[in-house]
Amino acid sequence: MNRSNGSPSDRSITRSGATLAASDFLQLNPADAPRGGMSDWLARQIRRAVAEGLLPPGSRLPATRVLADELGVSRGVVTEAYRRLTEDGHVEGRGRAGTVVLAAPLVRPPEDGLVEREHGGRGQAGRGPVGHRAEGRGTGERRAAARRAEEGGSTSEERALFGDPLDTGVFDALRAAPARVDLSPGLPDLAAFPRAAWLRAERAVLAGLVPADFGYGDPRGTPALRRAVARWLALNRGIAADPDEVLIVAGTAQALGLLALVLKDEGVTRVALEDPSSLGIRQHLRNSGLASPPVPVDERGVRVDALRATGARVALLTPAHQFPTGVVLDGVRRRELADWARDGGLIIEDDYDAEHRYDRPPVPALRSTLADHVAYAGSVSKLLAPALRVGWLLAPRRYRDALVDAKRFADLGNAALPQLVLAHLMESGELERHLRFLRRRHRGRRDAMIAALADRLPGAVVHGAAAGLHLTVTLEPGCDDVALAAAALERGVKVQPLSWHAQRPGRPGLVLGYAASTPSDIREGVSALGDLLR
Amino acid sequence: MNRSNGSPSDRSITRSGATLAASDFLQLNPADAPRGGMSDWLARQIRRAVAEGLLPPGSRLPATRVLADELGVSRGVVTEAYRRLTEDGHVEGRGRAGTVVLAAPLVRPPEDGLVEREHGGRGQAGRGPVGHRAEGRGTGERRAAARRAEEGGSTSEERALFGDPLDTGVFDALRAAPARVDLSPGLPDLAAFPRAAWLRAERAVLAGLVPADFGYGDPRGTPALRRAVARWLALNRGIAADPDEVLIVAGTAQALGLLALVLKDEGVTRVALEDPSSLGIRQHLRNSGLASPPVPVDERGVRVDALRATGARVALLTPAHQFPTGVVLDGVRRRELADWARDGGLIIEDDYDAEHRYDRPPVPALRSTLADHVAYAGSVSKLLAPALRVGWLLAPRRYRDALVDAKRFADLGNAALPQLVLAHLMESGELERHLRFLRRRHRGRRDAMIAALADRLPGAVVHGAAAGLHLTVTLEPGCDDVALAAAALERGVKVQPLSWHAQRPGRPGLVLGYAASTPSDIREGVSALGDLLR
Repeated sequence: MNRSNGSPSDRSITRSGATLAASDFLQLNPADAPRGGMSDWLARQIRRAVAEGLLPPGSRLPATRVLADELGVSRGVVTEAYRRLTEDGHVEGRGRAGTVVLAAPLVRPPEDGLVEREHGGRGQAGRGPVGHRAEGRGTGERRAAARRAEEGGSTSEERALFGDPLDTGVFDALRAAPARVDLSPGLPDLAAFPRAAWLRAERAVLAGLVPADFGYGDPRGTPALRRAVARWLALNRGIAADPDEVLIVAGTAQALGLLALVLKDEGVTRVALEDPSSLGIRQHLRNSGLASPPVPVDERGVRVDALRATGARVALLTPAHQFPTGVVLDGVRRRELADWARDGGLIIEDDYDAEHRYDRPPVPALRSTLADHVAYAGSVSKLLAPALRVGWLLAPRRYRDALVDAKRFADLGNAALPQLVLAHLMESGELERHLRFLRRRHRGRRDAMIAALADRLPGAVVHGAAAGLHLTVTLEPGCDDVALAAAALERGVKVQPLSWHAQRPGRPGLVLGYAASTPSDIREGVSALGDLLR
Repeated sequence: MNRSNGSPSDRSITRSGATLAASDFLQLNPADAPRGGMSDWLARQIRRAVAEGLLPPGSRLPATRVLADELGVSRGVVTEAYRRLTEDGHVEGRGRAGTVVLAAPLVRPPEDGLVEREHGGRGQAGRGPVGHRAEGRGTGERRAAARRAEEGGSTSEERALFGDPLDTGVFDALRAAPARVDLSPGLPDLAAFPRAAWLRAERAVLAGLVPADFGYGDPRGTPALRRAVARWLALNRGIAADPDEVLIVAGTAQALGLLALVLKDEGVTRVALEDPSSLGIRQHLRNSGLASPPVPVDERGVRVDALRATGARVALLTPAHQFPTGVVLDGVRRRELADWARDGGLIIEDDYDAEHRYDRPPVPALRSTLADHVAYAGSVSKLLAPALRVGWLLAPRRYRDALVDAKRFADLGNAALPQLVLAHLMESGELERHLRFLRRRHRGRRDAMIAALADRLPGAVVHGAAAGLHLTVTLEPGCDDVALAAAALERGVKVQPLSWHAQRPGRPGLVLGYAASTPSDIREGVSALGDLLR
C-alpha cells in the first residue's frame, strides 16, 4: 500500500485495496469476541484498525454482507457495528459507494487502560500507527522549519506568536498575522453569513420596536431572544428549559468569565479540563485565577475515573464533540459523569459546535438530563459568526441570581438590537435554513480537506470528522508541531499546533479548520503543509 | 412674592416682579466687592439669590444697562457676570425676552465653607430657601404617601423597590414596574433613535464587509470605530488621542468593571466618589469590592481639599455636568484637581452626557489636558441609545495592556456589526446631525419641565439645567423623597429620589429625566408629583 505517492489513480487503488483485505487483512477472529457483544467487539476492532492506519481515511469497508459471511455472523451484527462507527464519525455511509473511512480516533480505545496519545509500536505485529510508517519522510523539512525558526528565518512576531501559548494575546497575534490561507479552527463559513436575511430581520425588528426597547434592558437578555433560544435548544439539543432559565451573554468567553466569578465566590479554585482541550479556555481559567487539572480523553470521551481522581468539584467538558479530538462522549461515560455530578460535581458543558453534525442529529446535551448539575453554554459563534458576540448560559437554579448579578455588573446586559434580530432569525426558521445550508457546505469542505490530507499529508492521521468545523491530524512522534505551524505561517498558511491545546506531553499534530475556507484554499494550505513535512 | 399659587397669571407677575427688584431687591452693595473682582462678586451674589429662591426659575434678570447703572459699574462687569451664570446653567439669554433664571445651584457657594446641602434658615433675614417657605404645603400628602407605603397601600414590589437602594437589581425592578410616565434620569429621547439612518448604515456596512470581519476580532474594537471615536472626541471633547489609545467597551458600566479589575490588581481598595453621585456607579464599585469615600460637591464642582483628605488615590468624577447636581467643574477646581493628579492621583472621568450642552459647546474633558492621569469613559447611551451597549475607555498608557487583557477575557471584544454601523454614522456626519436634533428637542423638553415645575411644584428648587438629560429638584427638608417616589410610582409616574444618590444625609429631592418624555407627559408627571406634595 503505497500512500506516499499522491496521484489520484494511486489513491483510488489504495482505497479499493482496503476493500479486498476484509477480515483477513484486519486479522479479525470472531472467537475473541465476548458473548453477546459481537457488534461492540467488531466496532472496536475496526476502530483500532483505523487508529493504526490499517484503514486510512478514504478506505472502503467491506460490504456488510461480505464481512458477515467471512466472520460467520449475522449481517445485523455488522450493520450495528458500522452504525456505531458512523455515530463516532470514523466512517460514513455513501450509498452505492459503500461505507468509507473518514477519520481515526485520536486516542487509544478505552480497553487499553491508561491513555497514551504518544503510542508507538503497539498494535498488530509490524503495523505501527500511520505516523510511524511515515518515519523518515517530512523530518528533513520539519528540522528545516525548526532551524529557520531558531535562526530568525521567521519574523520576531512569528516567534513571539509561537512562544508561550499561555501568553494572553497569542490568538490576537495569530489573527493579526497576514496569511493567504487561514485554517485556524473554530470558524464557520463566514462568507456564508446571511447578510440579506440579517438586514431583512433588522428592518422588521426596527419597525416593531417601541422607544423603551432602546433603553436599559433586562440584564438577562431580551425576552424575545430568551424564548427563541429556549425553543432552539429544545429542538436542536434536547433541552427542556423555561426562557427564564436562559441568560443571554456575550459568547462563551463571557459565560465562562461569569461562571468563574460566581464559582470563585463559592470557594472553587480548580476547574478540571479535558486534555487536550481548547487553549483559549485554559488561558481564560488561568486569567480567572483557577487551576485546570487535566483529565485524559479516550475514545469514549473524558475519563471519569481520572476526573474523580483530580478531586476537582467542577469540570469543563465538550461532550458532543470533544475539542480538539472530536470524540463523542458515549453512553457509559455519560452515566459515569451523571454519578459524579450527583455526588456533588458541577459540569460546565461547552456545547460549542454540536449543531454541526454531519451524519445524524447530534447527541442530546448533558444539560437535557442533568439540569441541576450542568451549566450549559452555547453561542452563535459557530452558527452565524463570532463577531456577533451572542451566546447563552443555562445554569443550575442555585447559581442563577448570582450569574444575573455578574452579568449586570459586567455590562448591564447584551445589546438589544442584535438579540432581537437573532430571535427573529430563529423564530422565522431562517437560522435553521442557514444551518442546513452550512452543514452541506461544511461537509463538502471537510471532505476536501480529508482528500487533500490523504493526498498531501499521507503520514498524518485524521481525527474527529463526524461533526464540527475542524479536523485534528496527528503527526509522527518527535515532530515539532509548533515549529511546523510557524513555518506554515511563513508560507502564508495559518494553522494551530495540537500541542498548544495539550497540557500533558502528547502526540504532535495540527488542528485544522476547514469550514471557513474554500476547497481550493484548503488544498493549497494542506499542500503547503505537505511540502513542509516532506 | 406669592409662589404658592400656581396660576399662570400669578407666575407672570412673579416673574416681572423680579425685574423690578433689581439691585435693591437683591440687597447688592458694590462696596462689598473685592477690588478687581466685581464680575465675580456680582455673579456670586446673583447665584446666591437664585439658590435662596429670591430669583426663582422663570425670573428675568435686570437688563445689563439697568443693573450697571444702579450699581454704578461698567456695563461690561454685568455682562461678564451674566456670562458666567450662563455657563453655569443658572440663567439663559433669550434675546429680546432678556436673561431668565433657569435653575439654582444645588449646593452652597464655595465661600460658605463646608457644604451643607440641608441648609435651613440661613441667608438674608426672613428669606429662607424656597423649600422652607413652602413649609406646611405638601407635608400632608407626603405623610399620606409614607403612611400608604407603611400600610401596604403600595405593592410589595414597590416597597422592595424603594427599600435598600444598594440592593443590586433596584434599577431592574424600577424599570420593570409599569408606569404611564417615566421620568427616570439617564435616557435620551429614545423615540428619536435614527432607525432609518441606522438601517442605511448597516446595509452599507454589510455590503462592504469581508468574511474575516465576521470572525473573532481585535478585543480593543474594530479599527474603524476606534478611528471614528478618536475623531469624535477631538471635535466634541477637545481630546487629542490616537485610535490605538481607544478601547471600545460595552458601555460605561463595563469600562468601570474593567478599571476596577485592573486597579484592584494594583492594590487600589477605594475610589472616591462625588456626593451626591450616581447610585448605579456606587452599586458597581461595591460589587467590585471597592469602597467609595464620599467627597462633597459645591458650586464650583468637587471639593478637591476634601478629596485629598480622603486619602484615596483614585476618584471617579463627572466634571462636565456633575451627576446629579449639574455643577460644571470650574477653572479653579480643574487646576486643583490637576495638582492632585500630578501628586499621584488617578481620575476616572465619567463623561456621561457632556455633548448635551444647551448654551454653548461643552467644556473640554479633563482628559484633554491630563492624558497621563485620566481614564476617560464615554458611551453612546446618551447620544443614541443605552440598548446599543457601546462605549469607549481611554486610559493612561500604563494601564492599557492590562485593560485590553481584561476586555479580552470579559467577552473577546464588542460585537463587530454595531461598531461598524456606529463608525459609519460618526464618519458620515449622521451622528452629529442627530445630536443637533436631540439638543433642540431636549432643550424644549427641559423648558417644559422647568415650566411645569414652576407651575405644579412651586416649593421645589430646580438645579442643573445648562446641560444633560435631567433636572434635580430639592424639596423642603424633612420631606421623605423615597416615600414620594414610591407614591408617584403608585400613580404611574417613575422618578428617582435624590437620596438614592447621596451617601451622606442631604437635602431631599428628586432626579427627573425629561429627555425621553414628551412635554405633555412631562406636565402630567410633574402634576402628579405636585398633587402628592400638596
